[in-house]
Amino acid sequence: MDSQRLKLVLGYDGTAFHGWAEQPGLRTVQTELQAAIDTLLRRPAGTTRLTVGGRTDAGVHARGQVAHFDVTGEEYAKLLGRAAGSEAELAYARARKINGVLHRAGANDVAVSAVTPAPQEFDARFGAIHRRYEYRLKHGYIDPLQRFYTAQVKRPIDFTVLQQVSGELTGLRDFTTFCKAREGATAVRNLTHFEWRELADGTCVARIKADAFCHSMVRALVGGAVAAATGRIRPAELAELADLRERSTRFAVMPALGLSLEEIAYPPDKELAARAQQTRARREAV
Amino acid sequence: MDSQRLKLVLGYDGTAFHGWAEQPGLRTVQTELQAAIDTLLRRPAGTTRLTVGGRTDAGVHARGQVAHFDVTGEEYAKLLGRAAGSEAELAYARARKINGVLHRAGANDVAVSAVTPAPQEFDARFGAIHRRYEYRLKHGYIDPLQRFYTAQVKRPIDFTVLQQVSGELTGLRDFTTFCKAREGATAVRNLTHFEWRELADGTCVARIKADAFCHSMVRALVGGAVAAATGRIRPAELAELADLRERSTRFAVMPALGLSLEEIAYPPDKELAARAQQTRARREAV
Repeated sequence: MDSQRLKLVLGYDGTAFHGWAEQPGLRTVQTELQAAIDTLLRRPAGTTRLTVGGRTDAGVHARGQVAHFDVTGEEYAKLLGRAAGSEAELAYARARKINGVLHRAGANDVAVSAVTPAPQEFDARFGAIHRRYEYRLKHGYIDPLQRFYTAQVKRPIDFTVLQQVSGELTGLRDFTTFCKAREGATAVRNLTHFEWRELADGTCVARIKADAFCHSMVRALVGGAVAAATGRIRPAELAELADLRERSTRFAVMPALGLSLEEIAYPPDKELAARAQQTRARREAV
Repeated sequence: MDSQRLKLVLGYDGTAFHGWAEQPGLRTVQTELQAAIDTLLRRPAGTTRLTVGGRTDAGVHARGQVAHFDVTGEEYAKLLGRAAGSEAELAYARARKINGVLHRAGANDVAVSAVTPAPQEFDARFGAIHRRYEYRLKHGYIDPLQRFYTAQVKRPIDFTVLQQVSGELTGLRDFTTFCKAREGATAVRNLTHFEWRELADGTCVARIKADAFCHSMVRALVGGAVAAATGRIRPAELAELADLRERSTRFAVMPALGLSLEEIAYPPDKELAARAQQTRARREAV
């Protein structure tokens, strides 16, 4: 075995990170994690390059981030060690080796929950079939234990309106109203879920799921729904703004701290292979 | 009105505090809060003395801590300001004034949720009829967003055993086995609830309620239950140890970080007054 692709599932508290992506001189999740893997596998610094499923912004959290990278057969053996157990136990045993390095480096705000071998066709970014986010917000008093994880909303929230307007934003549509413009990129996405539950203390928790999201889309969608639920705009106006397909100043992009990337889903390995075969066949036909 | 007693409900992230109680040179919740109240009411530093319902140890969190202190009529007017609204809105408006001072002092890990006028007979410490705590623990991977709030347990947990042995520890009994000894103090308490729920990710959350707790009792009770649920001791042995009424090295006192003081309950105001009248009548009869 020459090269083995590995899939990582990981979580982080985004508070002290400048987001996922490497940036010179700034502390990012990618930088910390790549350095830990380099150390663990005794690679020269800067060798490991992670491909990620969701490039989160500064301050955004994750419980189910996914990334991939490749190791040599020798490195894979080192990562496996002498651990025995179920597939889940082995996946966590490998993860703990990376976490050990992270902790020794003082980074206890990021941790890997599972490292599993993946087919060479697995791609954390382009292979994902959907992403799921959570957004937490509350009017009034914020529990200090939630101060980094729940956004405060100044005005009282009408939960019924919040639920209703959020549901109306779902579907396969052009989300330009809720996206930071990128030249030549489409904002057509399939938002399958945008629903809320209310906790005992009044915290509202959104479950937001789509095939993919454009930049700042979740926080803008929540901002639009909150503007309607707090009476700043009429529900009908939010629908009109969504149809206009241009950025609006009628609602705010919500703060990063309320947002967490919960899950990224991929097709089963068999389908990955089939898909890769298709891609290969198309290439060979050219 | 000469003097008005105020009841405070507050929460804190215990991570960066050396517990509730004032200690020279250490950062404690009591010190921060008293200083903020002194500042807000323009009292000389060191004037405000808070009486608290639950003296939490270093690292222990709180969502429902209760304290009381007295203000003059003039100070009370200042605290009320020109706010209008429901009783709950007024209670939060007063709390926000204290929180404003705390935040300006850089303390965003403690916040008051409600300040309400209370009868002069109200006593946050001796008037409480029960205290409720929560303990969070998990085997294996700890979500980084939970790293300050959920204790890690090395061995796999048998949830059925955890639930069973915990239930068997409830009742009106002598808890000396689970208490740090204090000369001449009784360890007889009425533990009415000690039950667990399991979250989707495997985190076990205990709800623990008693009329009162002696020092380190919650963390020792959880330690005993965990020792049984992880197979370190037999459930029958835990019951025997409880009956022995002496401290044991067969189980550990769990770490502070998993613990949170959730609620302190008091009798209705009417009963407070009646109780005080009784106390007064008894004194006068002497």
